This record gives sequence, C-alpha cells and structure tokens, in this order.
Amino acid sequence: MNKIEAITVEEKITVNELVNRMGKAGMGARKLSEAVDVVEAMVKDDCKIFLGLAGAMVPAGMKGLLIEMLKNKWVDVLVTTGANLTHDLIEALGGEHYQGKWNEDDRELNEKGLDRMWDVLMSNDVYVPLEEFLDKHLAELKKAETIQELLKIVGSKLNEDSILGMAYKNNIPIYSPAFIDSGFAMILAHKGLNINQFKDLSSFLDMTWEFKRKGFIYLGGGVPKNFIQQSLQFGPDAGADYGLQITMDRVETGGSSGAEVKEGISWGKLKEDAQFVDLRADVTIVLPLIIASIKERIKS
Amino acid sequence: MNKIEAITVEEKITVNELVNRMGKAGMGARKLSEAVDVVEAMVKDDCKIFLGLAGAMVPAGMKGLLIEMLKNKWVDVLVTTGANLTHDLIEALGGEHYQGKWNEDDRELNEKGLDRMWDVLMSNDVYVPLEEFLDKHLAELKKAETIQELLKIVGSKLNEDSILGMAYKNNIPIYSPAFIDSGFAMILAHKGLNINQFKDLSSFLDMTWEFKRKGFIYLGGGVPKNFIQQSLQFGPDAGADYGLQITMDRVETGGSSGAEVKEGISWGKLKEDAQFVDLRADVTIVLPLIIASIKERIKS
Amino acid sequence: MNKIEAITVEEKITVNELVNRMGKAGMGARKLSEAVDVVEAMVKDDCKIFLGLAGAMVPAGMKGLLIEMLKNKWVDVLVTTGANLTHDLIEALGGEHYQGKWNEDDRELNEKGLDRMWDVLMSNDVYVPLEEFLDKHLAELKKAETIQELLKIVGSKLNEDSILGMAYKNNIPIYSPAFIDSGFAMILAHKGLNINQFKDLSSFLDMTWEFKRKGFIYLGGGVPKNFIQQSLQFGPDAGADYGLQITMDRVETGGSSGAEVKEGISWGKLKEDAQFVDLRADVTIVLPLIIASIKERIKS
Amino acid sequence: MNKIEAITVEEKITVNELVNRMGKAGMGARKLSEAVDVVEAMVKDDCKIFLGLAGAMVPAGMKGLLIEMLKNKWVDVLVTTGANLTHDLIEALGGEHYQGKWNEDDRELNEKGLDRMWDVLMSNDVYVPLEEFLDKHLAELKKAETIQELLKIVGSKLNEDSILGMAYKNNIPIYSPAFIDSGFAMILAHKGLNINQFKDLSSFLDMTWEFKRKGFIYLGGGVPKNFIQQSLQFGPDAGADYGLQITMDRVETGGSSGAEVKEGISWGKLKEDAQFVDLRADVTIVLPLIIASIKERIKS
Repeated sequence: MNKIEAITVEEKITVNELVNRMGKAGMGARKLSEAVDVVEAMVKDDCKIFLGLAGAMVPAGMKGLLIEMLKNKWVDVLVTTGANLTHDLIEALGGEHYQGKWNEDDRELNEKGLDRMWDVLMSNDVYVPLEEFLDKHLAELKKAETIQELLKIVGSKLNEDSILGMAYKNNIPIYSPAFIDSGFAMILAHKGLNINQFKDLSSFLDMTWEFKRKGFIYLGGGVPKNFIQQSLQFGPDAGADYGLQITMDRVETGGSSGAEVKEGISWGKLKEDAQFVDLRADVTIVLPLIIASIKERIKS
Repeated sequence: MNKIEAITVEEKITVNELVNRMGKAGMGARKLSEAVDVVEAMVKDDCKIFLGLAGAMVPAGMKGLLIEMLKNKWVDVLVTTGANLTHDLIEALGGEHYQGKWNEDDRELNEKGLDRMWDVLMSNDVYVPLEEFLDKHLAELKKAETIQELLKIVGSKLNEDSILGMAYKNNIPIYSPAFIDSGFAMILAHKGLNINQFKDLSSFLDMTWEFKRKGFIYLGGGVPKNFIQQSLQFGPDAGADYGLQITMDRVETGGSSGAEVKEGISWGKLKEDAQFVDLRADVTIVLPLIIASIKERIKS
Repeated sequence: MNKIEAITVEEKITVNELVNRMGKAGMGARKLSEAVDVVEAMVKDDCKIFLGLAGAMVPAGMKGLLIEMLKNKWVDVLVTTGANLTHDLIEALGGEHYQGKWNEDDRELNEKGLDRMWDVLMSNDVYVPLEEFLDKHLAELKKAETIQELLKIVGSKLNEDSILGMAYKNNIPIYSPAFIDSGFAMILAHKGLNINQFKDLSSFLDMTWEFKRKGFIYLGGGVPKNFIQQSLQFGPDAGADYGLQITMDRVETGGSSGAEVKEGISWGKLKEDAQFVDLRADVTIVLPLIIASIKERIKS
Repeated sequence: MNKIEAITVEEKITVNELVNRMGKAGMGARKLSEAVDVVEAMVKDDCKIFLGLAGAMVPAGMKGLLIEMLKNKWVDVLVTTGANLTHDLIEALGGEHYQGKWNEDDRELNEKGLDRMWDVLMSNDVYVPLEEFLDKHLAELKKAETIQELLKIVGSKLNEDSILGMAYKNNIPIYSPAFIDSGFAMILAHKGLNINQFKDLSSFLDMTWEFKRKGFIYLGGGVPKNFIQQSLQFGPDAGADYGLQITMDRVETGGSSGAEVKEGISWGKLKEDAQFVDLRADVTIVLPLIIASIKERIKS
C-alpha cells in the first residue's frame, strides 16, 4: 500500500506539479490526479476518444480549454448539447457573456433583457446576429441531412476561436442528438430543414463500430454521455478501454447522468480491465486543472 | 408569519393528511407540501400542463404513478427521454426489472447478461421481443415523419398498462427530442426510418404557441426540461403560470438540469407572478407522495 | 430476484401502505421502505437503540416526531447537538419558529431582529425567557457534573411537549458532546458551571459497554453520529446489529458525516452481519414517513 | 459588467496564474478565484482569522497545507474536531495512512485490522504509540483545565511537522468543543482528567470579544463552524468582516453545516458589508489550489 503523503506547496508551483502531489493524497485530491492520469493514458495510447460535453460550459468560460483539446486532437469525436453549440456560435459572432450574481433579481433582469445562467448573464440581443448568420447560410444549411453535417457547415464559416470552427478545422465530427432543445435550433425551427436523426445515429454507430481501442471523457452527464454509452456496446471491440466522468450528480436516484462509470461493465459499455475514474466534482473547477496538467505532460 | 407547527402522526394517517401537516413545518417537509399544492393548483386551473420526465423512472418503479397522471389527464404534453420509453416498452412486451444491489460485482453481472441501473437489474434478453415488435410494425412505423408520430403508432399497439399506451388512449402527445440515445432507437438505427427532428420541433412550438395558461412539472432535468423551457419563451402568452421542479442536481455548476426554476423569470420562461416550487429531492421518494396526495385531493 | 412492481396509489392510502409498495420498487423508494424495515426490526428486537440527532430538527418542525420516538421508548439513548436542545427549550418556554422564505433579505431580517435558518425564522427575543429560566434554576444546574446530568435537570422542569421533558419522563439519557457550541451554552458560559466532559464520556462508554444487542439511527451526521460510532467499537459485544443513517452528505470527501454505514464494518463499529440502511435523503422529508409507518406497524 | 473571458493555459502555468484566469470565468471557477481573493484580503488586513476545520483532513493528505497556514500565521485561532487532532497526533508519533480503494471489502479489512475512511486506510496498531504517549505525559496533561490547555501541552511535545506542534510553536490556540468524540479522547476517558468545557467556552468568548476586525475560513461545517459562528455574535465589534466557507453540504435541509454564509447577516454573525464567499466544492480538491495561490501572492 502507498502511504498518504501530505501535500506541500512552494511559491510558483505549476498546476501539474501540484496535481502530481495530490496523487499521493486521498479523497478528491487523489481522484483529480487519477483523472489527469487517465486522460494522459488515453491520449498517449492510439485510441479513439469521445468527449461527451454537457452543462453550461461556454457561459462558464470553459471554451478555451475545449478548443485546446480539439486543437491538439486529444479528442476524436465530440458529442454535446445544443446549448453549448448555441453559446459557442453566439461568441463566434461577437456576442458576450457577463459576470453577474447568482442572487440577482430575476424580474429586473427580465426587464433589462438579460438572461441568467446561475452567476452568468447574457443579453437577449445576441440572437439577432445568430439569426442573420443562419439566414445568410440557409441555402447551404438546408443541404445537410444530419445534425453532424449541419454543424460541419456552420463550423466551416467560423475561425478557430470557436469549438465549431476548431472542430471543423481538425475534422472532428460533432454530434448533438438533442440539438432541437437549443436556441440555435429554435431559430431554424420553421425554415424547412430536413434532418433525419436516424442518419445521425447510423453514421455514429457505423463510425464507432470500427473503432478498436476507445476512451471517453464525460464532462457532465445527460444525453452526450448516454449517447456515447449506447454506442460503446456494439462492434467487434465493444466496450471502452479508458473512461473519465466528472459530475456533481448523485448515484442514488438511478439516472444515467449520475450513474457510476463502473456500472457500464455490467452492460458491456466498459471493458472489465478498463482504466477509469469517476470524479464527483464541479467541471468548472477541475477542467482547468486537468487541461493545464495535460498541456504540461503532453508536449503538443 | 405562520408559526411552525411540529408534525404529529396517528396510526393509519393518510399520505395526504401527513403532507398537509408537513406544510406547516419547514425545510424540505414544507417544500414537499408546497409541491403538492402547486400540482393541485395547476390541475384545477384550466391550464396546459407539460410533464418533463428524465431519470430511470420505469426501472425505479414509478411507471404506475406516471400512468395515473396520464389516465386522469393531469398532464397535457409529455416530454421524456428515450430511455424511459424503452423501459416502458420493454415492460409492455413482458420484460421485467429486478431488485438488485447497488454494490454488485459488475463483472459477474456482465457474465450473467444482467444490466445494472444502481440497484435495479435487467436481463439483456428483453431486447429480443423489443426487436420483434418493432420489426412486426416496421412498415407502419416508417410512415412516421416525427418522433411524436412514431411514439403514437407504438402506443396504439399497447394497452393502458404502459405510459405509451395510456398516452395514446388519452391523446396525450409524447415528445422525445433526444430519442436516438436510447436502446429503442438503436434497434431502429439501420431500418430506414425518415424522421425529421425539425418537424418535431415546429409541431411542438406551434402547439405551445397557442397555449394560454401553462404549467410544468419537471421530474429530473436534462433535455425534457430544457426542451419545454425553450418553448415557454414564445407566443402571445409566453411564460409558465405554474412550475414544479424536482431534482437532486445542484445549482452551482450552472447547468440547465440543476438550474433554479426562478432563473426562468429572467428569460421570460416563467411569469413574474407564477406559482412555483423548486424541490431538491429524490423523485423516487417524493413522487409517490405527491401522486397519492393529488389522488385524494382531486377526485377523478 | 424480486421483480420491480410499479407503485400504484388509491385514494386515502395510508403512509405505511405506500411505504410498503415503495419497498417493491427501486432506488430511493426502495431504500426508504428498507429504512422503515430496519427501524421496525430494531424496535421489535430486544436491543438498545441510539438516536444520533443533528441538523435543525426543531426549527424544521420535526419535534413532534422525535417526542413520539421518545414517548414510545423506540430510543434508549439520545445524542444530539446543543442547537436542537436550545430550540427545544425555546419552544418549551413559549418561543416560536416561523415560516419565512429562503431568499429573504438578510439585512432586513437583522434589522427586524429575526434570525434565519434556511426558510425558518426566529425572533431574537426568545433568548430572554431562556436566560430567565436558566437563572431561576442556576443553583440546581450548578450541581451537575456532566452535560447529561445538566440536561436531565432541565428536562425535569419541562412537560412532555418537549424533547427534554419527554426524555426525562421516560428516563432516556441525553448526551451532547459539543454542547458548548449552542445558544443554550452561551447563556451559561460565565455562570460558574463545572462540567467535566470526560465524565460524560466515561459514563457513556460504561453504559454502552454493557449493551448486548445494539442499533443506531443517525438523523444527519456530525458529532452525534461520530460519538456513537466511537463507543460502538468497545465492549464484549462490540459493533451494532442494526443501523440506519439518513443524510444528504456525500461520501467522496471522506468526512464522518457523509461516510457510508458500511465503512463501520472495517472499524468494528458495525457487525459483519448487521442489518443496515444508508438512505441519502432529506431527513425533514423522510422522517415523517418513517415515524408514521412505524406508528402503524408497532401498536404502542 | 465584466465580460466572461475563456480560460486558456500554457505549459507550466502556475497555480496562482490559473486561478487568476478562473476569476474571469463563471460558476465554480470564478468562485474558487474569489475564495483565494477573500483569503488574501483577510490575511493582508490586520484582522483575526478563525480557521474552522472539519472532515478527514489529515487522512486526506491536507496536513501540510494546514501547517503552512499555521506557520505563516495566516490563522489566529484554530477550531477543529477531535478526529483531525487524533490523526495528526498519530502521524506525529510515526503512524501512517494509506491509499486504499473506496469499494474494498470491509469484512476483509476488519480481519486485517485496517480501518477505512472512504479511500484511505489506517492500521489499528496506530493506537498503541498514541496510548503510550498519552500515558507518558499523563501527569502533565492532568493539569489542564480546558481542552485548549490540554492540546497546548500535547503540542509542546511535538515538532513542527504536525498541526499540534506548529500551532504550539506559533502560539495559536486550538479549540475542540466536541473533543470527546475522538479516538484521542477515548484513550483518556478513564484516566481522571478534569476538563471543564465551560472554561473552554468562556476563554474562547473572552478572547473573541476583544477582536476588532475578524475573518473566518470554514473547511467543512459541523461543530467547528458553529462554535465560531456563535462567538461572532458577541462583543463591541460583533460580526465577521471576511468569510470563506467551503463545503459540499446542501442548504435545503436547514442544518448549520450546509447553511449559507449569507444567512449569518440575519443573526449578526456576519457584517452587512462583509466580503465573503460560499464555495460548494470538495475541500480536498480546492484547498491545495488556494494555499498554493496564497503562497505566491503573500511572500512569507
């Protein structure tokens, strides 16, 4: 057994060095360090990595870290919510998010045209350039038969400061199974698009069927996690070899979002000898640490 | 100010009576009572009620309570995950869920062909009758242009012991924006369906646009909640008049699932003077209490 | 394996009947039912039951349920926080708690002399009769050598509408290891009491050393849980035979309050074959259900 | 309003630099940065700082960070649980904690004489040198009239690699109101100590009465938090000027451990214009980041 070593710090300690020391401690500190280890292992291994992305990651300021992951090809497939893509596109088109307070008067915000996401605010006005952009490219967007194709077209119009743009540049497909619950989709609702979601599904399953070694990173739960989980059951090399889940959700209610990674072994979604970590933490706190550590460990 | 009255119990106290007493207490006890009050108010008012349903509700044994809601038309529109519909269909076709242990050996379960959802188990074999059923009705299912239509066709083949069957009987539309992340959808992936999710979206928006007074019940968060929230922003009578959310998720990470109901006021998703309750509790514990209480309060 | 049976309800269903049905379901519903079962089992067995009581139970309106437990001698030893005893004494002396709102303006409350505990309010004035009462009985209180004796003297002055009074009447000792963190103790701080907390400890250990079969009920964690846990390690019949813990705290941080009941087996605090339940729920929601069910199951 | 700026990282970024960037983001990331800011502010201000320390901090490997705080006199008064002091003394006497697994077989551990705290293990054997140490110094320990004095005597025998030893060296008083719930106290239970806990209380209140500007840092809740909170109500300069709370506990149950810092304003425990942060996070993850950042910001 390894002895617990008390964490010490020196001035100007790097994030990676601190995380390494946390790895010799216990509880959440150790788990965080193991989370970095499993990401490092899956990136260094020649395996295909799914990133399942839920939560208000763009409003929370996590966009730069996600772009870093895409830029360095630490991720092969992105599955995310329509909301994250909406906020990414909003920022790509010049819109902004602001630091507010979690206990603001929501009635006053409504009168000012400000929308609140916990302690982050956004003006209603951001939807104007979004609609203009989508209208401008509508003819091309209407050619898309899947959400994945639609998002690729959108990405092709944007620069690499956005998730959509960087994914396009690096040829990383983006799937968004529940896309129609987003502000992005609301604008497109009545514009005559013809997207067959079963084509999204079959292309996703066909792609993952071929993958040999596989890893997943779930930032939050929801549909992104569940969609990837489902696909991991199939194919000649079914089951992930590596897995990381970061969520604050609880296990006890039985829902997929909070479900243990380990549970996936029973379903064949995770290999019996897989390396995996189940970190119960706020993604907005630990993702910066993980990406900074990976950045130091894997010279890109 | 109302004085806190200590809760007392007598032998054979009914659920509704106990809930009423909890309404004179504080903390979670009071919130639970207020949750029943808001459901009662929205059912008695002539308003349209959305039920957003996430989590493993069918495996957890909540199906009968949901059917009760549909049977009594306490709900006008159901938005749910593909998973709940999959497990509902599995049971409708004779499949079963079992009481297991949360700390079972997942490797052993995998060898036995048992899939684990926290402390509930299910055999892999349930997918066989599911595939047979879907194959049998494939020609008809292929006529569906939306998930809502697809689910209506499925419901028409089932009896009222199922969510799908009871919703069909009572003409309650079911939307499932992220349907393709489900076992149900996996079976249909390569069978040539042509579902345009934007038609689902536009039919949903057109329907809700017309609604005057509106209420929502969110059991868990995820896509069902977010999809309903989005639609509430639009129309001549935008914003809900009543709202109930029940979740264990936290507010601090900023994600939609854990977001405060109150936050919706800033977006115009909730009216400024709406009656609403934000109950942070395990749905599987409080839903039985709520439905039993409503059953007593509203003779159906 | 037992099949999951969907919960159904009829009008005027009793709490116990509903809880029984929850026992055939999964997740939290099932756990709640098992919680009632383990309390029933320990009460029916000839064993000594410790109640570890933390949290704002009196302000939350749980007092009547706790008095019910003491009245029926479902509990043999009470270990609790000074706060619960303070609020119990406040109410015994005519003070009141009120229903407020969780998001009130705390500055305004301060100006009005109202103290907030989440959504419960209390006037500062309640401390006046508390101080008068303690002054009146000071000579007698100064004879106490332990907190347990001090609380017994206080209880002897009160009627059975209070935790302190009912415990006195039924000769149930109350321990409060951290008593000095309470409003009750603040008043006594400079009044010359001479309480030796090691006498509290040794009397508690001597008492529990003799206990043969043992059970515990932890409502919340904190010092009450930990104090009982410690004592369970010692004696010829070390380790509890029954255990119930109800808390919303998490396991991952490693603290005692959220620690799994199961962990106690490694320490010898829980017998290897003990019957125990670890219910992650809000005590203020589930305690009323548990006591109502026990009331029906055990005619008192 | 400040714009949210997406966090970016470079190779070898220091912890403090990353935390600064998190301060321009939202949600938990921003809160963590504000937590560092409030600690920096209270340390730089000429105010008295209370550290309230709960949870399994020593087993989790946090000891070195706590010693750093005491060494640099960032803390003026320590209030903690008996458990943290027990584990600190165990390590000071050569005992060790080990990295285990959270899902180990507790029966096997019991047979091996290993005690589990989530994913940390400790041998039963550690209590032998602890008892020897306490017996050796018993005569001196028996002179203590308060727990604070007892802990000071113990600290005087230890070197600065321990919390007890460093606090002694820097003349930082340690209070432990619930000391008797600890393994440390169990050993002393029958050894004839005569500790009057009301003397601990009155010395604590007398000391804090004199403090002008005040700050608190609560790592976890429990008795340490509540004891400090109580004392903050009294004196000519009642109420804290700065506050930081870090906990995973929830607000909804109404207990003190999870209660909002803000609530303290209603009681007069926190000044109306105080600078405070309420960080809902795992202490074992964020404490290393906070101390590393403070170390860089405040050259000691």
